Amino acid sequence: MAPKYKLTYFPIMGLAEPIRFLLSYGKIEFEDERCDQDKWPSVKESTPLGKVPVLEIDGKTTWQSVAICRYLAKQLGLAGANDWEDLQIDMAVDTISDLRMKVAAYAYETDEALKEKKKQSLLNETLPFMLPRLDKMVKENGGYFANGKLSWADLYFAAIPINFMMGFDITKDYSNLSALKNTVCEIPAIKEWISKRPKTER
Amino acid sequence: MAPKYKLTYFPIMGLAEPIRFLLSYGKIEFEDERCDQDKWPSVKESTPLGKVPVLEIDGKTTWQSVAICRYLAKQLGLAGANDWEDLQIDMAVDTISDLRMKVAAYAYETDEALKEKKKQSLLNETLPFMLPRLDKMVKENGGYFANGKLSWADLYFAAIPINFMMGFDITKDYSNLSALKNTVCEIPAIKEWISKRPKTER
Repeated sequence: MAPKYKLTYFPIMGLAEPIRFLLSYGKIEFEDERCDQDKWPSVKESTPLGKVPVLEIDGKTTWQSVAICRYLAKQLGLAGANDWEDLQIDMAVDTISDLRMKVAAYAYETDEALKEKKKQSLLNETLPFMLPRLDKMVKENGGYFANGKLSWADLYFAAIPINFMMGFDITKDYSNLSALKNTVCEIPAIKEWISKRPKTER
Repeated sequence: MAPKYKLTYFPIMGLAEPIRFLLSYGKIEFEDERCDQDKWPSVKESTPLGKVPVLEIDGKTTWQSVAICRYLAKQLGLAGANDWEDLQIDMAVDTISDLRMKVAAYAYETDEALKEKKKQSLLNETLPFMLPRLDKMVKENGGYFANGKLSWADLYFAAIPINFMMGFDITKDYSNLSALKNTVCEIPAIKEWISKRPKTER
């Protein structure tokens, strides 16, 4: 029998969306539990380390979104063919994740002066430094992040809602990144997920 | 012929120390390049994404410290025996890495008021929440972070200099975490590395 999957997260895309992309890619049914802010304190206590997303696989609790994505990718044929290829994928994912964290630190900042400072640092330093380099990576890898073929790094990038947090499409001036995102979003199973997922702002 | 390894980082333990632990555990010779702050702007330009540590393996550049550790661990028999075991290790490592990031955000904060606020949040919320749970993980896994046996998660935890950044030994009230750290540091090859490594504050 196929394993049962239950995903628990807030009612947003956030860190859970790459997991939802992977499950959708694999045509895996999953319970998509979305926990409102008022339920969070009790849900938090029930998680192993106070963090979501949590993915229950046949009742066994797993957490840490990137670790979960890597595990699912191996089951779905979206990992590398060997240790070296896996390293290339992991390097790309951790770089995208670093970028997401910087954008999230800005998006979730509540102090207005600090928020403006973080925004300027992103617009003038981080994004102009990182995006051309990420774009070049994709160009040199035949339209993908690693190893010249589709991997979970590509799904991770297309799913993680950096644009929503930043307020504009960060790929707009980077044709390789933008094309890659389209490639992923046009995969039929992903396209279907995007069309049916709850519409949220981030 | 054995591959040639060259590690480039700042003259501190920081994010490079888990890589140094793994290379030492494997009795792998490596060039331990330590770049001073005045050389950093030129070194930064030479890295793929402006970040160190960078590990050159036979002239091929790799980056992202956790990704590098995972790759080395696979070569050294410190990864899991299957995908599920690898997931348990990855969950532990990413949790330790999250904790390190919170501590680093405090340690590197230059605004005194903000720094104090971050310190109080660590002392009153993050550490009291995370440490008992991490300690329990180790207890339930026979003295290790995952799968009842030594893995790179244990080396990662013992190497990453959270204590130095926090200003005290965060494991002092947590006997399982503290015992695990000792177990790793008493592995002969690790013990030798610790005795010969350059003495730095963090």
